[in-house]
Amino acid sequence: MKLEHLGIAVKSLSTSDDLFAKLLGKENYKQESVEREGVTTSFYELGESKIELLEATNPESPIAKFLDKRGEGIHHLAFGVEDIYAEIERLKAAGFIFISEEPKDGADNKLIVFLHPKSTNGILIELCQEKGEEPSK
Amino acid sequence: MKLEHLGIAVKSLSTSDDLFAKLLGKENYKQESVEREGVTTSFYELGESKIELLEATNPESPIAKFLDKRGEGIHHLAFGVEDIYAEIERLKAAGFIFISEEPKDGADNKLIVFLHPKSTNGILIELCQEKGEEPSK
Repeated sequence: MKLEHLGIAVKSLSTSDDLFAKLLGKENYKQESVEREGVTTSFYELGESKIELLEATNPESPIAKFLDKRGEGIHHLAFGVEDIYAEIERLKAAGFIFISEEPKDGADNKLIVFLHPKSTNGILIELCQEKGEEPSK
Repeated sequence: MKLEHLGIAVKSLSTSDDLFAKLLGKENYKQESVEREGVTTSFYELGESKIELLEATNPESPIAKFLDKRGEGIHHLAFGVEDIYAEIERLKAAGFIFISEEPKDGADNKLIVFLHPKSTNGILIELCQEKGEEPSK
């Protein structure tokens, strides 16, 4: 398990892309929209992890709701795993609660699933697995 | 620059150590108190990054104030740098604001300094450098 990325909710990608390029000393390496999730994302490399800026594409987007409630800031952590199905079973057995137990397609060619923050110290945690790497489903 | 660690404010280290050991599938590798900061910390390896749980040791601790205001959750991100003095100069020149511009001793044998969240999308960002690694001060 590693910290694959951390997601940061921002009001404006153009403003925050400028800010993070200065902060990290490098440009983003891609932008990608996930229309079903109502987000446009911008990715930065940071060692073996990534920073994913998240801008809402419509007012019903989970990111729009997060911004209304909390303002800009860290939205979620994503742990990269080798076998997302095995991790879901391991964590369910340990008492963790998932928002949905069925992995779905996310940005960056990933299968993703979210743990419920009420079982994880108030932090929204994503598990993600590179698609095409499915060792023991 | 890499994501050296992320700090998570928790009400109770004993409760959250149990939770994170289950979540990450491994025990913490150390606990350490930084009395001047009013915190006890607990560290977990996560690839090349670490998770640092932070419990307040007194009601005046910045962690106690954070918990009162926001509840449990991600408190800060720490970017590991090779030369903290050079990074402070680079970021000041780029318009970033520091809470204090003078690095101080933090947990885990680090020199640390914090950027002000108002200049970083609402996120408290720490720069840290391993002590004894001071290439070009």
